[in-house]
Amino acid sequence: MLRATLLMAAGALIAAAPVHASGEEASDAEKAVNYRQAVFTAMGYNFGPMVAMVKGEIAWDGDQFAKRAERVADLAPMPWEGFGKATADVPDTDAKAAIWEDPDKFERLQERLAKRTAKLAKAAAGGAERGEVAQAFKQVGETCKSCHDDYKKDD
Amino acid sequence: MLRATLLMAAGALIAAAPVHASGEEASDAEKAVNYRQAVFTAMGYNFGPMVAMVKGEIAWDGDQFAKRAERVADLAPMPWEGFGKATADVPDTDAKAAIWEDPDKFERLQERLAKRTAKLAKAAAGGAERGEVAQAFKQVGETCKSCHDDYKKDD
Repeated sequence: MLRATLLMAAGALIAAAPVHASGEEASDAEKAVNYRQAVFTAMGYNFGPMVAMVKGEIAWDGDQFAKRAERVADLAPMPWEGFGKATADVPDTDAKAAIWEDPDKFERLQERLAKRTAKLAKAAAGGAERGEVAQAFKQVGETCKSCHDDYKKDD
Repeated sequence: MLRATLLMAAGALIAAAPVHASGEEASDAEKAVNYRQAVFTAMGYNFGPMVAMVKGEIAWDGDQFAKRAERVADLAPMPWEGFGKATADVPDTDAKAAIWEDPDKFERLQERLAKRTAKLAKAAAGGAERGEVAQAFKQVGETCKSCHDDYKKDD
């Protein structure tokens, strides 16, 4: 019974994965690329309203900001396992070869993002004012940018 | 300076979003669909190794299981805002119209998933044995399945 349920759950989740463009089963490397891109998409979607609030384009909502900041902090450690060496050969990604040329440097930036997003989530927790989170927010934005500058094509 | 950094960070994140198939800017509803699918992809990618461990297809690793369970619990509350009413009209998704016909029922299942994934993460925390998490895991799998049965096409 447990086994049957697990098989159904596994089947349901596999079916939930996006269909590979060629119609063939995606390779592990392609799945890893798909995964890391999905995590970045989720991160960007939650970061967007935070940017808009900080810039004053939408009304400040401390609770919303806190929720988004927590999500970004939760997501920040997730994508990196999707950058395994085998994924360097997956075509049509925005990843630069520099990622695999100096893995230690790439890892340092991953740790910095984890640390800074956690700091921002902590500063925002419970619903802070704009001024209370501005510095922590700026540091997260700079970390996004420095990583994209070095490791993401056309950015 | 803060403003310049924010604009760069926002630009970097917008550039990170997948390009819409038609080459046109994606609508808010399309972005929401893209977001919810991304979160489900991330959830499935982390759930996969948990299924394989419970089924004995790969070696049991309590720390790995705990990490995956925590991620699934973190992700579980995220996708639902991507099911706004306007997304009912986005073509080529696996979402059934039933989602918008009885939103209260859909919300009850969302809450159930949040509760059960949190329970599983708690049971797994610190590196549990298979037997200690089996029941909580089964309940998560059943929740995935019951929601897919009602609200996901061809599942």
